[in-house]
Amino acid sequence: MKELNPPVRTLMGPGPSGVHPLVLKAMATPVIGHLDPGFIEIMNGTMELLREVFGTKNELTMPMSGTGSAGMETLMVNLLEPGDKIVIGVHGLFGQRMVDVASRAGAEVIPVEAAWGTPLDPAAIEAALSRHKGVKAVAVVHAETSTGVRQPLKEIADIAHRFGALFLVDCVTSLGGIPVEIDKNEVDAAYSGTQKCLSVPPGLSPVTFNEKARRAFASRKTKVQSWYLDLNMIQNYWGAERFYHHTAPVSMIYALHEGLRLIVEEGLENVFARHAINGRALWAGLEAMGLKLVVDEAYRLPELTTVYIPENIPDAEVRRRLLEQYGLEIGGGLGEFKGKVWRIGLMGYTCQKKNVMLCLGALEDVLAQLGFKVEKGAGLAAATRVWDEAGSG
Amino acid sequence: MKELNPPVRTLMGPGPSGVHPLVLKAMATPVIGHLDPGFIEIMNGTMELLREVFGTKNELTMPMSGTGSAGMETLMVNLLEPGDKIVIGVHGLFGQRMVDVASRAGAEVIPVEAAWGTPLDPAAIEAALSRHKGVKAVAVVHAETSTGVRQPLKEIADIAHRFGALFLVDCVTSLGGIPVEIDKNEVDAAYSGTQKCLSVPPGLSPVTFNEKARRAFASRKTKVQSWYLDLNMIQNYWGAERFYHHTAPVSMIYALHEGLRLIVEEGLENVFARHAINGRALWAGLEAMGLKLVVDEAYRLPELTTVYIPENIPDAEVRRRLLEQYGLEIGGGLGEFKGKVWRIGLMGYTCQKKNVMLCLGALEDVLAQLGFKVEKGAGLAAATRVWDEAGSG
Repeated sequence: MKELNPPVRTLMGPGPSGVHPLVLKAMATPVIGHLDPGFIEIMNGTMELLREVFGTKNELTMPMSGTGSAGMETLMVNLLEPGDKIVIGVHGLFGQRMVDVASRAGAEVIPVEAAWGTPLDPAAIEAALSRHKGVKAVAVVHAETSTGVRQPLKEIADIAHRFGALFLVDCVTSLGGIPVEIDKNEVDAAYSGTQKCLSVPPGLSPVTFNEKARRAFASRKTKVQSWYLDLNMIQNYWGAERFYHHTAPVSMIYALHEGLRLIVEEGLENVFARHAINGRALWAGLEAMGLKLVVDEAYRLPELTTVYIPENIPDAEVRRRLLEQYGLEIGGGLGEFKGKVWRIGLMGYTCQKKNVMLCLGALEDVLAQLGFKVEKGAGLAAATRVWDEAGSG
Repeated sequence: MKELNPPVRTLMGPGPSGVHPLVLKAMATPVIGHLDPGFIEIMNGTMELLREVFGTKNELTMPMSGTGSAGMETLMVNLLEPGDKIVIGVHGLFGQRMVDVASRAGAEVIPVEAAWGTPLDPAAIEAALSRHKGVKAVAVVHAETSTGVRQPLKEIADIAHRFGALFLVDCVTSLGGIPVEIDKNEVDAAYSGTQKCLSVPPGLSPVTFNEKARRAFASRKTKVQSWYLDLNMIQNYWGAERFYHHTAPVSMIYALHEGLRLIVEEGLENVFARHAINGRALWAGLEAMGLKLVVDEAYRLPELTTVYIPENIPDAEVRRRLLEQYGLEIGGGLGEFKGKVWRIGLMGYTCQKKNVMLCLGALEDVLAQLGFKVEKGAGLAAATRVWDEAGSG
């Protein structure tokens, strides 16, 4: 078996996104023990940085030892007991996944749907809460990775709280890309992933729980069905007790620490501005090439753009050529959107002017190869106008 | 927040153990997508290497995206349904943990106990299977990380199979340190961890399932309670379908691939011989220093030695001085053994002659500082005799 030598890619799919070189360097830092005083310092630093990026003062803010889906499961299995009712917003694959995960935790799920590519209607959530008494939680996806929709949070938070329900949010693709503002948005618990806008490899799921959410799992009548994700134990490892639960994934925590540090160093506002401007440039470029975006601008995620595949253009063949000719990865559609849309990520370290240019240039070329009529250079020209007007990129 | 600069340690605790420099290098390899054709090749290579190190032809042999405890939970939640009976060998913390995890999966657990520091008696397992009809599985820990006991497997496998039960084994601390031989020992399913004898950071749990075990979870009447660990879905990502489930922890899989490749390159037999000889040298050295080992030699793990803390010697103070004066980590006791034993690991890359020497020398010094009477150089002399007689190290 030969040494690893994977191809070099520009990762503009729905994640993993490009990893910052300093994060890669951190991954190679020699490992120390998970109970070493030196590691405890790194854990504290990671929690402090995570709080800043999440926009929260929540003490219980830490990475779970699994990918984003493990974070989703962490919220569901800790906060729900068999028979509990939960209202879940479903307008994409990750809302559907929440329904599956919550059902497996024994909850009675009340799905509230919206069309893929559109946001949830807060009134529909309010109606569901009125119809079903004693709902324990309301859960929505802040940035639907399958559709590119940004879901406004505050109005739904207010509704959930008016009905005495916890408000749970999937921030996998939003954290570090757009403001999440856990405390201002009155989110009671949230989870994210490292491989999107944090510029860290996949493998950890940052989570945060406020005191109300902590009381909810502290006062459970039944044991959490997952030992691995049981917060009543895990909080004693990340808390002052440092009580051994499972061996922490040390290297991934190094990487997360470094990814977060770089975000805080750049400044959250600057990071969001960078995502916003490059997202707008990409949108302008795609539209100038004659492509149609899926999501209304008001709800569009700058870090993940969904675009309809033109008629008679073969989905997989385009993505194969981008990969082979340009080392460029973009994402295909999932679920309802399979074969219908591409998903173009501009997340974290990937979110650079040069990558927007590469994507527009490569896509123009490959689409032309396959007979799509496109005016040469129109995409780049439109993107450039956006950067020029904003005076940055 | 400053750049990460953790202290440099020699990791001779119960894990994480030292990570091979080439594995650290692999961790820093730029990330590619989890559905990239280049990554699929790496997945296939990882599975092939894992089969070789596990000693199995099992097709379903792959890493789960969590630490060893997630592997334990994977076996329990997939193979057990509510009401199923399982016999679990309990003679240390990890047997106890299996009881907890299996109970949370709704199983009726029949624990079979042995004293900490001793192996299980196969006759006791047979008696439990006779008393309780229709037991679905028997589970034991091959290498109890809390006690240092090696549990012989084949006799228990035969008993389990005679009663029609699956045989499940925890190989967290054995894989890559002593022969595991999944197929020869007729183990139906097993899990391990990366941070012990594979010289890889913590974060993944290699698992393997034979066809009988696969039929068991394929024919379940209920959904697996964990979405994240549901093998009915995950096997379609690692299998020919490459069906997206969750984003694979790409960098950790790079690391695992490299760690396994190094083991296969050195040769499994050579790897086991290295663990055996250095383990024996450490034992001889500790005994020559007047310390008492916990486990009978016939059941002692070369990769993890438990030694009684001498009377009137303060546990935590010794470990603190080893860490501060020598950058050397050894482990304290857990559970029944808390404050009573130290656990000294010689796992994977850590298992080198020079580390045995460091450990004996540093321990001698620190014990002497705390008033323990020890003949200077006796430990090293005894260890050296072992290496000299064997003509290697």
